[in-house]
Amino acid sequence: MIKVGIVGAVGYAGIGILQILKRHPEVQIVWVSSEEAHSGKKISDLRPSLKGLCDLPCHSPDISGIISQVDVIFLAVPNGIAMKLSPAILEKGKKAIDISADYRIKDLVEYKKWYNIEHASPALVEKAVYGLPELFRERIKGATLIANPGCYPTASILGTAPLLKNKLVDPRSIVIDAKSGVSGAGAALTEITHFPECNENLRAYAVAGHRHNPEIDQILGEVASQKITTTFTPHLIPMNRGIHSTIYATLATKISTDDLNAMYRDFYKGAFFVRVLEKGRFPATKYVSGSNFCDINVVVDERSSRVIVMSVIDNLIKGAAGQAVQNMNIISGLDEKTGLDGCPVYP
Amino acid sequence: MIKVGIVGAVGYAGIGILQILKRHPEVQIVWVSSEEAHSGKKISDLRPSLKGLCDLPCHSPDISGIISQVDVIFLAVPNGIAMKLSPAILEKGKKAIDISADYRIKDLVEYKKWYNIEHASPALVEKAVYGLPELFRERIKGATLIANPGCYPTASILGTAPLLKNKLVDPRSIVIDAKSGVSGAGAALTEITHFPECNENLRAYAVAGHRHNPEIDQILGEVASQKITTTFTPHLIPMNRGIHSTIYATLATKISTDDLNAMYRDFYKGAFFVRVLEKGRFPATKYVSGSNFCDINVVVDERSSRVIVMSVIDNLIKGAAGQAVQNMNIISGLDEKTGLDGCPVYP
Amino acid sequence: MIKVGIVGAVGYAGIGILQILKRHPEVQIVWVSSEEAHSGKKISDLRPSLKGLCDLPCHSPDISGIISQVDVIFLAVPNGIAMKLSPAILEKGKKAIDISADYRIKDLVEYKKWYNIEHASPALVEKAVYGLPELFRERIKGATLIANPGCYPTASILGTAPLLKNKLVDPRSIVIDAKSGVSGAGAALTEITHFPECNENLRAYAVAGHRHNPEIDQILGEVASQKITTTFTPHLIPMNRGIHSTIYATLATKISTDDLNAMYRDFYKGAFFVRVLEKGRFPATKYVSGSNFCDINVVVDERSSRVIVMSVIDNLIKGAAGQAVQNMNIISGLDEKTGLDGCPVYP
Amino acid sequence: MIKVGIVGAVGYAGIGILQILKRHPEVQIVWVSSEEAHSGKKISDLRPSLKGLCDLPCHSPDISGIISQVDVIFLAVPNGIAMKLSPAILEKGKKAIDISADYRIKDLVEYKKWYNIEHASPALVEKAVYGLPELFRERIKGATLIANPGCYPTASILGTAPLLKNKLVDPRSIVIDAKSGVSGAGAALTEITHFPECNENLRAYAVAGHRHNPEIDQILGEVASQKITTTFTPHLIPMNRGIHSTIYATLATKISTDDLNAMYRDFYKGAFFVRVLEKGRFPATKYVSGSNFCDINVVVDERSSRVIVMSVIDNLIKGAAGQAVQNMNIISGLDEKTGLDGCPVYP
Repeated sequence: MIKVGIVGAVGYAGIGILQILKRHPEVQIVWVSSEEAHSGKKISDLRPSLKGLCDLPCHSPDISGIISQVDVIFLAVPNGIAMKLSPAILEKGKKAIDISADYRIKDLVEYKKWYNIEHASPALVEKAVYGLPELFRERIKGATLIANPGCYPTASILGTAPLLKNKLVDPRSIVIDAKSGVSGAGAALTEITHFPECNENLRAYAVAGHRHNPEIDQILGEVASQKITTTFTPHLIPMNRGIHSTIYATLATKISTDDLNAMYRDFYKGAFFVRVLEKGRFPATKYVSGSNFCDINVVVDERSSRVIVMSVIDNLIKGAAGQAVQNMNIISGLDEKTGLDGCPVYP
Repeated sequence: MIKVGIVGAVGYAGIGILQILKRHPEVQIVWVSSEEAHSGKKISDLRPSLKGLCDLPCHSPDISGIISQVDVIFLAVPNGIAMKLSPAILEKGKKAIDISADYRIKDLVEYKKWYNIEHASPALVEKAVYGLPELFRERIKGATLIANPGCYPTASILGTAPLLKNKLVDPRSIVIDAKSGVSGAGAALTEITHFPECNENLRAYAVAGHRHNPEIDQILGEVASQKITTTFTPHLIPMNRGIHSTIYATLATKISTDDLNAMYRDFYKGAFFVRVLEKGRFPATKYVSGSNFCDINVVVDERSSRVIVMSVIDNLIKGAAGQAVQNMNIISGLDEKTGLDGCPVYP
Repeated sequence: MIKVGIVGAVGYAGIGILQILKRHPEVQIVWVSSEEAHSGKKISDLRPSLKGLCDLPCHSPDISGIISQVDVIFLAVPNGIAMKLSPAILEKGKKAIDISADYRIKDLVEYKKWYNIEHASPALVEKAVYGLPELFRERIKGATLIANPGCYPTASILGTAPLLKNKLVDPRSIVIDAKSGVSGAGAALTEITHFPECNENLRAYAVAGHRHNPEIDQILGEVASQKITTTFTPHLIPMNRGIHSTIYATLATKISTDDLNAMYRDFYKGAFFVRVLEKGRFPATKYVSGSNFCDINVVVDERSSRVIVMSVIDNLIKGAAGQAVQNMNIISGLDEKTGLDGCPVYP
Repeated sequence: MIKVGIVGAVGYAGIGILQILKRHPEVQIVWVSSEEAHSGKKISDLRPSLKGLCDLPCHSPDISGIISQVDVIFLAVPNGIAMKLSPAILEKGKKAIDISADYRIKDLVEYKKWYNIEHASPALVEKAVYGLPELFRERIKGATLIANPGCYPTASILGTAPLLKNKLVDPRSIVIDAKSGVSGAGAALTEITHFPECNENLRAYAVAGHRHNPEIDQILGEVASQKITTTFTPHLIPMNRGIHSTIYATLATKISTDDLNAMYRDFYKGAFFVRVLEKGRFPATKYVSGSNFCDINVVVDERSSRVIVMSVIDNLIKGAAGQAVQNMNIISGLDEKTGLDGCPVYP
């Protein structure tokens, strides 16, 4: 059994991890922690859905004394915190999976520019492995510190990578229009996530300035072996869960929808969690909701010589908690599907 | 391994059963069936969420030739069909769990009045056991034909039974105001479930005439050992899942909220799936969504000498598919929680 | 032209009033005010929907210097504030319409008990007229201080009054189960109105303890000429607008649905804003959304000898802003429909 | 007074027109018609929101005998019908405003290709004026047959036209990612608009094949005076009303967000219904809901040298009924704002 601790178990990513691990046959949740104000309270008192299923007390944010009790620690925390907790975890020989953005951006100047945080453990940035198993499974196997990808980058990179890897599109032509359910904004109260403001409403936000844009560009650049600069625009959609990334790129060569579809199937052969749909079927967030799947399809728009890729995930599962558990499985030597093979919740 | 067939696997109850059974460690789904038009198609083509998880072909509605391949058959069909399929199933020594209303109403005259269907297997009505395990677990153990309760009756009966069993309220005073998510109306297209009609809308329906009213009254009458006639009003709520039954009754004796809460805890002691909340915490459908739980709490309104009971379930799980699997577990000699112990899906 | 000021114009009730008055042919909005932090900002900067339509600057909460510029002031403020502003308004010979609860409860001990506020202008409580025109139109005509009814009381009292006035039901038997859209909770951020908590969720709140309960009982007691103690339970529904009150009472005499329907039509004869639907048609909040209508219907449940009344309003219009303008029309000698005769917004 | 008839008054566009005209000071609705099955029924029986406001009977689809009673006829009908009704209307000297697509596409071969309908009145196609007043106000003034624009084209063209008119972008680089509320799909029942399928879901549809694409390209081509081929992808959003078009184009010249914003303001100077927001404010569908406004803003993404335009409308108002009334006002010599100057409905 893998002994696990969850830092930030009350937030949406943290409770997502807990919900998955409760069904994981090889895991024991040893402790959970949350903010100071929750210290000592039962997690089921803070999140009543857990009543009778998980009644662990919340530890305080200072976890230094309990690191040694576990094998793997999930850091489901706001940006700027994992960078302080990780060194002690690794020093004790434990593994850390960081759900925040602290170790995703390799260029520290770029990190500072977008996040406005001075990095507290820059030496670990290089060591951290970007935890997108469908692209970097081999690297992940030996990792002790995982930078779990952002939700938008997961859907967007998985949708775009085959095009760049196969040099099918003009690398300067990529536009990513992404739409997310509101849980992606987290559990903190804000005016734009107040129900009457958000329900029956739709808007773009952080236009030409979202922090997931450099993350996407860094990884796509690695895939393409050249600098990639995409245009990325996120939108807030009145639903709880789901991301739909619609990706546009100008074809560098003539190719049919059929051939492109076949190429995607080949690219993701053996990747259980990426489902390339049959030609003519468009992904819908509902069909992956509650699961770790990423459903993808492609259409060639012959009028404009562009390819349109649709890529959907559950932002809290493949976009956060599920991918984190997938990474835990891989670094622990388990089948990556363990505990993650349930059906999407339909309808 | 229990070998299982699902009749009506494409409807919301049927796919709900399939989603649960895919994670059930003691079950093998041998075949599924659907309407004639689906015959031969893969269920994952009809319900794309299942792609890669369950690719069984749909059999035609005539299942006579394949009954013998399974141990238990779930009948997730419209009213009037299970009554025709069940005799052959039982004759072959198999067990049937009927999600429809065909075997719920014991009084055949009453059945005819509310459902306007001539019963095709009246002899089996007596034999069928009403599958509400928290009240009738012992009877269910030996059953071969289960009448799986309706969604509204499940929430309403579990909320009301302790009051009547303990003779705490005037039996003529019971008012049940129930609210349901739209999936309760099924997958068939209707004007009131068309999104623009249903979203941002709220209405009562089938007022003083819903078929679940006699079902509730029959079971509560059995609990109370006297005739019970409740007033029951269902409402359609713009959300997918969840039932909230708010139950009102005039107290026959003075009792505090604390004592009533304690009495409910005692009544449901040992019932894993009924969670009586702490005093002052009100049930919310979200906290049971995706799970087989029924969360209940009670408040005494001293001004009016009434008790107010709140009882919530996921209408598709404890109100249909989950309860059906719970019944399957019981009649198969398994722990009733098997395959049903996952966390509610929050948020 | 009636010159109008709106205190609290940025809140949901305040902006509702402004939206209506912008189309009112006999009104000029002279000034608006809001909290200190908004002082000097254009209201269209705070509420972008108004851009180009109303660009008035927000005054500070201290309106003493500008009372004299207007004829009527709407007080769309939290409880405890109107009681401090109203004396100065009336002293200057102006009229005030209070959307808060400050002047609704006539019994000051009861007020203190439910609101936990020491009343700052108790002498005005008696003088204030409860602004429910369908019941108290004559009194309202001569009023200078209007206590505008709460949203739940509006729907609930209009639905129940005919039964009590005509002594058709047992006065101790009244149960009011009310459901409200989330805008009823106002613009302030709270955990239960955070989108991911509130969407796909349904819960009761303030059970046996909501402040609208004594308001309902006071007015129904006046209608019935006897003390009335109802049981009232509010529920939060995942939609923006709309209240549905479902009212249950035990019939004191045998009466048919037809006769009851006819009686309601007669009771509301001449009341433009109350529409008693044809027998068999159930009210839906969507059909009154954006309008000042209250749609009502009744059904006799012969099995249980109860009457079920359904009463729906737009909580922000007939439940707040629209009724306030209706009251302004009446105290100003205008047709009560002026500016309020638009169609509901469907779909 | 302008005498008006509405063909197809029960559909979402038709009832939208009726709702606006009921408040229009210069219009009298003389008759309405609907499908055969509705013939003779009161429109308020079919659409209960209208009870007491509009109780006109529905005429049958054969309106030949009643054309002469009115001045202007709104054709709120499925594609293929207006082309048959319009000749008789124009012959009698009346004016027609066609909400369907019948007269939008000038190239009859293109029309046939996308709509698969043989045009029944090809001679009128040339005569019809595309009713987008912000671009073609002068032409509209003298028109007798208006081709009212599609909902997606309205938002998309208004957002893109200033870029092309001012030759600021590469004309081959335009990508339009559009998102629509479900009312855009109309009142007809379909599986993807069934509430449980549509709620908590998001998907693209008609990818690289939506009929509004050639309409957008035709008009933008006229604006640019060169052939334009955009990539256009529509998405279905779980809300009732609203379209958000996000438009991407590669800048042909270096320009700042400030300068671009100023240019848009200048372009739409005098256009009451287009509101170019202040720099840094992003449009939201809620802020135009229920109104005829189109809110627009632009951002230059310097990293990728692209401009991002956001353009929002209420799909049923500026995208259908409101624009139709705006056109009626113009062809009737009225101020185009008449009857359309109400506030958006917030929240």
